[in-house]
Amino acid sequence: MIRTIVWGENHHEQTNRVVSDLYPNGMHGCIADALNADPAIEATTATLQEPEHGLSEARLAETDVLTWWGHARHGDVDDAVVERVAAHVWSGMGLICLHSAHFSKIFKRLMGTPCNLSWREAGERERLWVTSRNHPIVAGLPDHFELEHEEMYGEPFGIPEPMETVMIGWFQGGEVFRSGVTYKKGAGSVFYFQPGHETYPTYHDANIQTVLRNGVKWAYNSAPRVLDVTSAPNRAVEDALEPITARGPKLHEDGQEGFT
Amino acid sequence: MIRTIVWGENHHEQTNRVVSDLYPNGMHGCIADALNADPAIEATTATLQEPEHGLSEARLAETDVLTWWGHARHGDVDDAVVERVAAHVWSGMGLICLHSAHFSKIFKRLMGTPCNLSWREAGERERLWVTSRNHPIVAGLPDHFELEHEEMYGEPFGIPEPMETVMIGWFQGGEVFRSGVTYKKGAGSVFYFQPGHETYPTYHDANIQTVLRNGVKWAYNSAPRVLDVTSAPNRAVEDALEPITARGPKLHEDGQEGFT
Amino acid sequence: MIRTIVWGENHHEQTNRVVSDLYPNGMHGCIADALNADPAIEATTATLQEPEHGLSEARLAETDVLTWWGHARHGDVDDAVVERVAAHVWSGMGLICLHSAHFSKIFKRLMGTPCNLSWREAGERERLWVTSRNHPIVAGLPDHFELEHEEMYGEPFGIPEPMETVMIGWFQGGEVFRSGVTYKKGAGSVFYFQPGHETYPTYHDANIQTVLRNGVKWAYNSAPRVLDVTSAPNRAVEDALEPITARGPKLHEDGQEGFT
Amino acid sequence: MIRTIVWGENHHEQTNRVVSDLYPNGMHGCIADALNADPAIEATTATLQEPEHGLSEARLAETDVLTWWGHARHGDVDDAVVERVAAHVWSGMGLICLHSAHFSKIFKRLMGTPCNLSWREAGERERLWVTSRNHPIVAGLPDHFELEHEEMYGEPFGIPEPMETVMIGWFQGGEVFRSGVTYKKGAGSVFYFQPGHETYPTYHDANIQTVLRNGVKWAYNSAPRVLDVTSAPNRAVEDALEPITARGPKLHEDGQEGFT
Repeated sequence: MIRTIVWGENHHEQTNRVVSDLYPNGMHGCIADALNADPAIEATTATLQEPEHGLSEARLAETDVLTWWGHARHGDVDDAVVERVAAHVWSGMGLICLHSAHFSKIFKRLMGTPCNLSWREAGERERLWVTSRNHPIVAGLPDHFELEHEEMYGEPFGIPEPMETVMIGWFQGGEVFRSGVTYKKGAGSVFYFQPGHETYPTYHDANIQTVLRNGVKWAYNSAPRVLDVTSAPNRAVEDALEPITARGPKLHEDGQEGFT
Repeated sequence: MIRTIVWGENHHEQTNRVVSDLYPNGMHGCIADALNADPAIEATTATLQEPEHGLSEARLAETDVLTWWGHARHGDVDDAVVERVAAHVWSGMGLICLHSAHFSKIFKRLMGTPCNLSWREAGERERLWVTSRNHPIVAGLPDHFELEHEEMYGEPFGIPEPMETVMIGWFQGGEVFRSGVTYKKGAGSVFYFQPGHETYPTYHDANIQTVLRNGVKWAYNSAPRVLDVTSAPNRAVEDALEPITARGPKLHEDGQEGFT
Repeated sequence: MIRTIVWGENHHEQTNRVVSDLYPNGMHGCIADALNADPAIEATTATLQEPEHGLSEARLAETDVLTWWGHARHGDVDDAVVERVAAHVWSGMGLICLHSAHFSKIFKRLMGTPCNLSWREAGERERLWVTSRNHPIVAGLPDHFELEHEEMYGEPFGIPEPMETVMIGWFQGGEVFRSGVTYKKGAGSVFYFQPGHETYPTYHDANIQTVLRNGVKWAYNSAPRVLDVTSAPNRAVEDALEPITARGPKLHEDGQEGFT
Repeated sequence: MIRTIVWGENHHEQTNRVVSDLYPNGMHGCIADALNADPAIEATTATLQEPEHGLSEARLAETDVLTWWGHARHGDVDDAVVERVAAHVWSGMGLICLHSAHFSKIFKRLMGTPCNLSWREAGERERLWVTSRNHPIVAGLPDHFELEHEEMYGEPFGIPEPMETVMIGWFQGGEVFRSGVTYKKGAGSVFYFQPGHETYPTYHDANIQTVLRNGVKWAYNSAPRVLDVTSAPNRAVEDALEPITARGPKLHEDGQEGFT
């Protein structure tokens, strides 16, 4: 079982009638239901409003994959939780950032770039094209599929060059977007997936749900977490793998900690 | 002329006799001299101790490439200056991080990973191997060259997969290290280069100086800086490149700012 | 079950006493045994001497992953079989090239580069360092492990930049090598792994066997093969996904085949 | 001066009135004129019909960058010339493959994949989006620009993951395409650029000509060619960089050639 947390900002579901009608159990509830339809996945939810946003150290330690959707309240996410999630990703937890999570603290933290884009909320048609055929994330999908209504996200998208560009979106109004991109950050696999504006029924779409399930399986790393993932150990001269003798001037006394 | 700032922490030069004897004008002074030996480069220096660490907005705006060496005082670098440098990199300024700058705030900020490694100060021999022949960064160098004394930096190195791994280091004590790696971060080219422990005469080495000069030329982007590099512009429906009509429910009022 | 073919050149096992003593059932037999120790893998063997080298279209169509070891008889491999294997890789079959298979026709065909290196047969010590912690290929392995005797393979290694450099080898005589590298070629995952000189007991080593089993699982793509993987279909104007009208001068008559 | 050869198939210019009217000096002539407008470039032409297709060893040895356009006569290009060009790319010559050269022998040879795509000749509008802002190849260009008439090339495009995806094309009929992609193959930089159907005036377009000039400068490697780019040298035990003693059983006699 791939233990998955579906994180939701859970803001517009509480404040906007269009969104609450589309997602009466929250977007996170809808996504979790879609994931739980796969017997290999066990998805639960967490939201901004919970203590520690539902992402305590203990819970993350028992989580294989985290999905993240946020939009209007990125700034309310505690920096300490962001660093905690980042450390779990580096150690091997998978992370899937959805739609407006391009501007989430955790995605920007991991990318090291602005992650900006152009946008337009016009309910226009998007067509997603698969650029990496039979990639595990698009298993079972045709070479292209459509969303009759999506928010336009347009290039240039301020991300680092992906490990793989898996999908590219075509928009009716004339833009394109790298809609599905993958990264490795330490032992953790990261997938960004563009569709999912909250005023459209995107997460009810069968193809989108397939991508979400595939994405969780792709991001899953079955190995135990890397321990002390940020440590920079000193290796003593006398323990060198090949026998050597210390020589030359030294800055550090023996056994001294390095600078961090 | 490639306008280059050589940034130095300038700490051990002031506090450690070994270092000040090796680098009487500072490591930054030595590196700047090496760069200025190339008529295409105009290098000046900046240090931690200067106001804004010598990296004001005005000065960075007239800088093509920045090189960074720091070790013991990473924590003293102002976060605002780090963000300023990052924005200039995204906009097109080149950045070269040297040796212990693997743990500098700016390098970790741009990589989005721990950037950790193992280390040993034993004055052992390092041999650098070129893995990308005739890469501009190694132009004029043989396939391998040696440093009789270097600090060991060992894998695993906590960086994202590079755009290119240009050099790999072999250490006498049995370790290897990705010693020369490149990245693109927005419009900015980033080069990390491992040699340069302050108690050894590394920056006086002819091959190392060649890499430094090559690196500056490789990192130079002659295009004007990207403006508003973090903005996420809304594109109005009526200005769409292909004529479309707004439809479906909306979250944003017309002309409203997006969430950031 | 991951249906795996272990392909062996099976030449030195027949002609060299050292090799036949080390591998009485052939290197391919030893590797297949190591793979079959994993209940998720079902490995069989194929050799150069069989009709079609044991790699008929029918057999490849029912194969998930192919491992390849060759050295002295690369030139005897039929070009038509090489193209057949390449097409299966593009369609989704995993491929693992071992040791001297760096110079196999199939590896060079897929890389598009010389795949050359330097080498020395001195029975020296190699130490493999993991550069991508917890990558599925190195699951269960320590950060480094040793082979007391290996053939030296040294950089520069004439390969394209890998998708990921997973392991780097340190050699006693002073060289380094990108010993474990991954690629995607169409829907097929490709892994090159350097150890495995035929006069040493490398494939009896427990760590090496772990890498082989991990590699097969990593290279496995559970999706059905991509059909017509080389076709370049014409899309008729009247079937365009968005309504358009043909305009401008034409080179091709309607329905005409493209040039290939 | 960047010594550049503009290679043209020169077939439809001789057989099709539309093409000869658009390009009275051949498409290669038009491209060469565009390149020669830059004082840093010295462009000449070569065509399929010349001896050795105009690409003798002597001429390639004095060439920095080669651009390639072919469509209907890919099969007529001599395999020996293709191998010769490939070796020069590995050694450091830049290569720019234009439009239907996605199916040229040289591009497929270097990519190691089918390089296939879908297509439609409808004279539809294409809009090219820059995905890597301020990349040297798009210096001076806006974030997007249009071609009123182009042949549709659509994803999935059967190429390996690029080093960088620099431009993506939007097509009126609903497709997208990775229109500008870069690779390194040995010491040689490779750029594929999609626009350029022979029945439209694409190579007369100012933005396209800017990309061509930028591309040549980007692909230029000023270092001398790598010598013996395919050799796999044996390093003798007695010449090892670190002193070692041969041990263990050997396959090769001392000084023997390796297998190739």
